[in-house]
Amino acid sequence: MRLALCQLNPTVGALDANVDAILATAQQARDAGAALAVFPELAVTGYPPQDLLDRPAFLDDVERAVARLVAEAPRGLALLVGAPVRNTAPTGKRLFNAALLVDDGRIAATTFKQLLPTYDVFDEYRYFEPAPPQTVVTFRGVRLGVHLCEDMWNNREEDPYQLYAANPVDDLARQSVDVFVNLSASPFAVGRPAFREGIVRDTVAEHGVPFVLVNQVGANTELVFDGQSSVWQPDGRKAVALRPFAEDFAVWDLGNDENTANAVETSHWDVSTAAPSGDAAHPSSNDIADALPGDAPVHPSMLGADLHAARTDGRDDVDDLLDALILGVKDYFAKQPFFKKALVGLSGGIDSALTAAIACLALGGERVVGVTMPSRYSSSGSVDDSRALADAFGLEFYRVPIVPAVTAFGQMLAGTADSATDATGGDRVGDAVIPGGPTGVTEENLQARTRGVVLMAMSNAHGHLLLTTGNKSETAVGYATLYGDMAGGLAVLSDVFKTDVYKVARRVNERLGKAAIPEPTLTKPPSAELRPGQKDSDSLPPYDVLDPILRAYVEHHLDVDGIVAETGTDAETVRRMLNLVDRNEFKRWQAAPGIRVSTKAFGAGRRFPLVEGWERKA
Amino acid sequence: MRLALCQLNPTVGALDANVDAILATAQQARDAGAALAVFPELAVTGYPPQDLLDRPAFLDDVERAVARLVAEAPRGLALLVGAPVRNTAPTGKRLFNAALLVDDGRIAATTFKQLLPTYDVFDEYRYFEPAPPQTVVTFRGVRLGVHLCEDMWNNREEDPYQLYAANPVDDLARQSVDVFVNLSASPFAVGRPAFREGIVRDTVAEHGVPFVLVNQVGANTELVFDGQSSVWQPDGRKAVALRPFAEDFAVWDLGNDENTANAVETSHWDVSTAAPSGDAAHPSSNDIADALPGDAPVHPSMLGADLHAARTDGRDDVDDLLDALILGVKDYFAKQPFFKKALVGLSGGIDSALTAAIACLALGGERVVGVTMPSRYSSSGSVDDSRALADAFGLEFYRVPIVPAVTAFGQMLAGTADSATDATGGDRVGDAVIPGGPTGVTEENLQARTRGVVLMAMSNAHGHLLLTTGNKSETAVGYATLYGDMAGGLAVLSDVFKTDVYKVARRVNERLGKAAIPEPTLTKPPSAELRPGQKDSDSLPPYDVLDPILRAYVEHHLDVDGIVAETGTDAETVRRMLNLVDRNEFKRWQAAPGIRVSTKAFGAGRRFPLVEGWERKA
Repeated sequence: MRLALCQLNPTVGALDANVDAILATAQQARDAGAALAVFPELAVTGYPPQDLLDRPAFLDDVERAVARLVAEAPRGLALLVGAPVRNTAPTGKRLFNAALLVDDGRIAATTFKQLLPTYDVFDEYRYFEPAPPQTVVTFRGVRLGVHLCEDMWNNREEDPYQLYAANPVDDLARQSVDVFVNLSASPFAVGRPAFREGIVRDTVAEHGVPFVLVNQVGANTELVFDGQSSVWQPDGRKAVALRPFAEDFAVWDLGNDENTANAVETSHWDVSTAAPSGDAAHPSSNDIADALPGDAPVHPSMLGADLHAARTDGRDDVDDLLDALILGVKDYFAKQPFFKKALVGLSGGIDSALTAAIACLALGGERVVGVTMPSRYSSSGSVDDSRALADAFGLEFYRVPIVPAVTAFGQMLAGTADSATDATGGDRVGDAVIPGGPTGVTEENLQARTRGVVLMAMSNAHGHLLLTTGNKSETAVGYATLYGDMAGGLAVLSDVFKTDVYKVARRVNERLGKAAIPEPTLTKPPSAELRPGQKDSDSLPPYDVLDPILRAYVEHHLDVDGIVAETGTDAETVRRMLNLVDRNEFKRWQAAPGIRVSTKAFGAGRRFPLVEGWERKA
Repeated sequence: MRLALCQLNPTVGALDANVDAILATAQQARDAGAALAVFPELAVTGYPPQDLLDRPAFLDDVERAVARLVAEAPRGLALLVGAPVRNTAPTGKRLFNAALLVDDGRIAATTFKQLLPTYDVFDEYRYFEPAPPQTVVTFRGVRLGVHLCEDMWNNREEDPYQLYAANPVDDLARQSVDVFVNLSASPFAVGRPAFREGIVRDTVAEHGVPFVLVNQVGANTELVFDGQSSVWQPDGRKAVALRPFAEDFAVWDLGNDENTANAVETSHWDVSTAAPSGDAAHPSSNDIADALPGDAPVHPSMLGADLHAARTDGRDDVDDLLDALILGVKDYFAKQPFFKKALVGLSGGIDSALTAAIACLALGGERVVGVTMPSRYSSSGSVDDSRALADAFGLEFYRVPIVPAVTAFGQMLAGTADSATDATGGDRVGDAVIPGGPTGVTEENLQARTRGVVLMAMSNAHGHLLLTTGNKSETAVGYATLYGDMAGGLAVLSDVFKTDVYKVARRVNERLGKAAIPEPTLTKPPSAELRPGQKDSDSLPPYDVLDPILRAYVEHHLDVDGIVAETGTDAETVRRMLNLVDRNEFKRWQAAPGIRVSTKAFGAGRRFPLVEGWERKA
């Protein structure tokens, strides 16, 4: 029996467009001789639909969309497709997360998800009732072990601590299955694809049955899905490997390896040309050659990445990181109708340079606008490096010095300089001109906020989406100004530590075969340039010391003792950094959404109280 | 047997202070002859601890705190106290939400929570394993039906749709109980206390057993807990009623009604004077008399509130709303060490006036700083009304006209005015002086953001916490400027619709017995004053039309058809408002935390995708 793996990129909530894409791909699958076309988890709604699932009107529309899908699906093949389904029992959550077997104008079988991820960015028990053990689906005599995403992750080999008592894969195996079929919406994080693959391989090895995994691809708000749908054979071979970070399609014949090899070699399918609708729900593949003027892309090459070992397919974690960020920006624009161009404040530093570069790779340089906003403390290099970057990427470029507004604010605020003393109502009213005005951190923030006002005015006037440029290291310790450099609609790098920002930036230049991100930007000491001679290292440890501390704390939940043991940094420094992270929850509460590329990003998947009194003893 | 109801106000994470308060109150209970002192759910950590529960170091500290509590608890009485407890099973979430019976230096019994609220602001399945049915706890021969908060809410009488298959209260009743004891951390929302009370009354009526409910009080970040712990008798009488929105304490004798009545009359207990620690974890009662200079408080009186019927104890929903907001501000300051004073931008309008008034009621006028920031479009009344408010509440007051900075921005931005055309890299660099500059919405936002910069500079310079003033109606439709009037650390009114803002403001004046909020502020047409003659009604329906639409959509998940049927407003207007709500998720993503006073506030309890493609058909 021939199966089609349909790795689509749905837009959350875009029910009509998502069903159109499913129907078009099903037709493609039938034309390719498939008997069964497999789609991702919640392919009808896109993942994650979040609180749209709380709206009865949305659920009514989902039912209508599923009814249309059933009615219009091509005959002669069946579809296995993810959708939310109402729970008709008198108790429990109102929905199940389901896989529907659509065959010949009806829903022939339904499988409900049993294990509901409710941690980090996942909130599935908020909406769905966990299902009891499910039964094998028999289709044309083949026993399909259908299950959904998390159902396969309760895996003893990969994680000794099991989050759930049930093990749906084992339960299915006990019923005898010919092939496991997993419908996933499994988001990307660095290292996650290899972990996911390990689970599939373990399962195949344990049960001696082939495994088909179809994963969502594309970005929805904070989450990026990497696709990489696959088929694994009991002998340990990967029979099908769909592309990372792009829509893709392949067919595979259960029990016929010759045909399988063929599928891997030839059936990659560019949805951007093949899909009939061609609308925003179906962005073209994120091949960077499309996005750049003139330069031929350099084939991904190895970097001496000290983060993780390189992967066997010639890609490494830095490639994954860069491609995930590009897709995150691309889909953020492609899936909303309001903004066509990206706006970036360029400081001459590495973060804004990489943010602009990624925007150019995602959207094309002609859809990116850069602004340099020198202050009295800016080095001439800041403007020169920003201009060189703009030239290399072909982006629209402006220079708006901020001195006039900063001066005006200084004069306006002089009258409020000593408000801390014995004031009572009325006495201090007036446009006082007490000498003085903002100094220190107040003045630094004032400059950053003046830039924020300039950028937001340009965003408002021209309808550009402002990208914010802070990296994960800065975001962690609060080395950023709320409403200043934190202003913007999408934080491209907020889940990328500073040391990784450099690696990704160098990879951009390697791919482009030129120093598009200027060498001085890559080599000069990091500085906010908010006071004379300021360097990040005045306030923080060097980033190669800081980042391992932050990663251990934020991503692995270690505390002072464990981090000292792991990093060798002194306890006093570690404690000071951890306290900075804690104290800056209030800034992150108001931060722009970021693109999640780690297993613990700032954003919706990390939920700390703003007001709390825990004092670490260590 | 004498029970003590210990209605405490823990600070999330402040383990030492929370245990100190529990120990001090236990001593008080023993001195009052109690055999058992009952505390709220998760009293050791405070509720909700959120992702602090993901940190092993925090969990280690919790275990140490519980061990100290057990060791130091006064002998001769037992404590029933809420704390997270590790799950020692090989599968499942790592914690249980537990009630510990601490008796004579050991944990004599443990009851785990079965029903884990995972909706709205609740994320309990993120951390806790749901427990199987629990057994009755026998203490000194009395069969205690111990359970935790949500365990009692799966109530057929109050809600025909049951979220859970299990019913812990029924399960306990089947084992025969002498008294139900519920440890709660049940947050306030308008109407919620009456609903909660209804469930208790139904349970008592159904099972014929008295019911002791001990609820947390106080605010933690977004959530306000109203307390109102109580004892209900099988004959339908409320035997004990602890205060709303304040710490409180009472003893009650199981099976002795005389004593019970005594408890209700006399044993109210002001923790602010009685507790030994007296630190920030134990704010004094929110009696408004403490906070105001000179004026004697007016006893709460009835308002002709059309929202809901008045409650039988002489308080109504407007009183609850006002007291919840006061407590929300008070505890936000009391439970963090960084800010002593509140800063409010005063526009002369009702929202900023009420925000400042609530801050004064919570903190005292001497801890509130007001700033009026007139623009060229501000009416003279704006400044006069702001000054009158400042005089009435005795707050520090400044006037900072924004024209100089707005003018400077206009000149700076003139060179960017027509960036939409054929620009390429480099060509447009320079300090261009193209006539023009920001107009329309850009100019309106520029004024609001200039004010935001002024206020944040004052916040930075003096360490004041900026309160943001937007109400729920504005926040819903996006009638607010990101980084402008949305700037601030706490949004006092973001869960209060505009029509309710007026009611609460009038209630403030009634309580104070004078027009502290000036009459012109209460009666003039709402205006943002960002262009000549601007009125809110230019862009939006009148608030008495708008608010019912928004309430039905945001709080009750109705859509166009249902809202037209319920409100009688035309479908076109309703659809336009609903689309405005959807389109402004991006602003709310970056909004300051608000004080939750409804069953569906903007904030952590409402999770919509920013990028989504649902188009309503209706």
